[in-house]
Amino acid sequence: VALKLVDLGEFGLIDRIERLASGLSASDVVLGIGDDAALLRTRPGEDLALSSDALVERVHFRLDREDARKVGRRALVAGLSDLAAMGARPLGFTLALAAPPSRELRVVLGLVRGLLDVARRERCPLVGGNVTRARELQLTLTVAGAVSRGRALRRDQGRPGDRIFVTGTLGRPALARLCGRPARPPRPRLEVGRRLARLPGRGACIDVSDGLLADLAHLCRASGVAARLRAERIPLPRGFAAACRDLGTDPRQLALCGGEDYELCFTLRPGALDGARLSRRLGAPVREIGFLEPGAGVQVSPPLPPGSPGWRHF
Amino acid sequence: VALKLVDLGEFGLIDRIERLASGLSASDVVLGIGDDAALLRTRPGEDLALSSDALVERVHFRLDREDARKVGRRALVAGLSDLAAMGARPLGFTLALAAPPSRELRVVLGLVRGLLDVARRERCPLVGGNVTRARELQLTLTVAGAVSRGRALRRDQGRPGDRIFVTGTLGRPALARLCGRPARPPRPRLEVGRRLARLPGRGACIDVSDGLLADLAHLCRASGVAARLRAERIPLPRGFAAACRDLGTDPRQLALCGGEDYELCFTLRPGALDGARLSRRLGAPVREIGFLEPGAGVQVSPPLPPGSPGWRHF
Repeated sequence: VALKLVDLGEFGLIDRIERLASGLSASDVVLGIGDDAALLRTRPGEDLALSSDALVERVHFRLDREDARKVGRRALVAGLSDLAAMGARPLGFTLALAAPPSRELRVVLGLVRGLLDVARRERCPLVGGNVTRARELQLTLTVAGAVSRGRALRRDQGRPGDRIFVTGTLGRPALARLCGRPARPPRPRLEVGRRLARLPGRGACIDVSDGLLADLAHLCRASGVAARLRAERIPLPRGFAAACRDLGTDPRQLALCGGEDYELCFTLRPGALDGARLSRRLGAPVREIGFLEPGAGVQVSPPLPPGSPGWRHF
Repeated sequence: VALKLVDLGEFGLIDRIERLASGLSASDVVLGIGDDAALLRTRPGEDLALSSDALVERVHFRLDREDARKVGRRALVAGLSDLAAMGARPLGFTLALAAPPSRELRVVLGLVRGLLDVARRERCPLVGGNVTRARELQLTLTVAGAVSRGRALRRDQGRPGDRIFVTGTLGRPALARLCGRPARPPRPRLEVGRRLARLPGRGACIDVSDGLLADLAHLCRASGVAARLRAERIPLPRGFAAACRDLGTDPRQLALCGGEDYELCFTLRPGALDGARLSRRLGAPVREIGFLEPGAGVQVSPPLPPGSPGWRHF
């Protein structure tokens, strides 16, 4: 018979999670799981970056369609992508796990194993959190990172005249979801973020989680500017356009509105590095896709077909 | 008609929360609500304390019995009590809020107002978080604090021979719950924790959230020691014993197992300050209630009547 959470109890579950997370500690962690709070250490001249995000079953993931371990990986990638968008290096994360007592232990530990896969790869140890009973399965992650003072990348630093860039390609996760086979989550752009934070002429930065159009709109609102995007400049994965047409979907629309890309969208002042030299400096493919101007909102040219904007929570 | 979350939308709700939280910023906050992550600043020689906790409707609170604003207050008191138990000063907190779109805005904003009541009083600004749709109402708070290096209070620093102390009185919140009229949450013992962190001869420390017996058992496990409690030394509120007897409840049992007291339980080495001088030094009433010895577990003498231990999540 499959073990359920109720068979293990709160402290049994915490013990199992602690054992799975062992050996993951890092030099920035003074005190990990097991006390009233974790203790983390930043270096002199660093600020702390802190971000929380919740994933709810049947809203953000479906375990009948996706493996629990993949969901866990995606959850921490999303959290670390927020640190990447600040130019921060990860210090550690906490997990608040809510689940019905009748849920199978295998599923819940699968989620945790997925988190820890990414935690190991990106060197971001699990340092604490809590577990609680609930009717609905929910993971809330809080990631903590460190960034040199005055160097953090922010949404509100865009200016008219800035050129807009995006890393990697957009649309692959959206296409995979459309086909009912969620793709493995990309790696968060932590190294790009840290390099960008040191780049002369950097402007604003945001990670692409809700879809480029929605996220760029956040950046514009925070910076008090408008954006113009050239649709044909949007970097698409190989074979993406053909696959979209087979499905009767507009490729640019899917790439711009799909979300969960976890790429970085950022702006640079006129005269800053660009092209292949910029890609080399940041250590990742980067494409110029438009510019900022006075005003508000995001305009795509040629315009997208009507309908289907980004994700809505309520 | 009562406004519901669905009428406002995700960003409408975030705007409302942001407006409620405005004017709450503090000197430790470099960047608050609105970016991919908040930026917080510690002082030189300080470590970061980080703790996450989730409250789920019908598990941790019931809005048919308790005002939303009180629930919100209790939630942040619980989080700050974890910082108090580390000897940390608050820097800020994030809120991950999950709620059904059909919930009344008034209720959800009531929870937020309660959080902000405590945030203002204890100078711990709301710096970020997220809101999401869910079938169940849930608040997950992550509190961040700062504590001088090497000074943090920990659970694992108890030694045989240490004397055990507790602040304030125990049992009032449990009695109020038993009577179906939840009491206003106490203030977190932040100042006591910070003073204790500087006290020569300090041992281990934990806050009383699950009930003194359960929490002291955590402290003993972490420190690898046993505890002996003198039941008649447990500090009870005025009139508490009589009220318990009227309800047919054992007062010591309720005080030791009830929970949500948010007092600090700590140990001191033999020869450290005690009595009235200790209370003056810590700025709060403090009572010696027992001692640590070699072994494991918590023993109460005279023993409690059988049955009813602490809170179980699964």
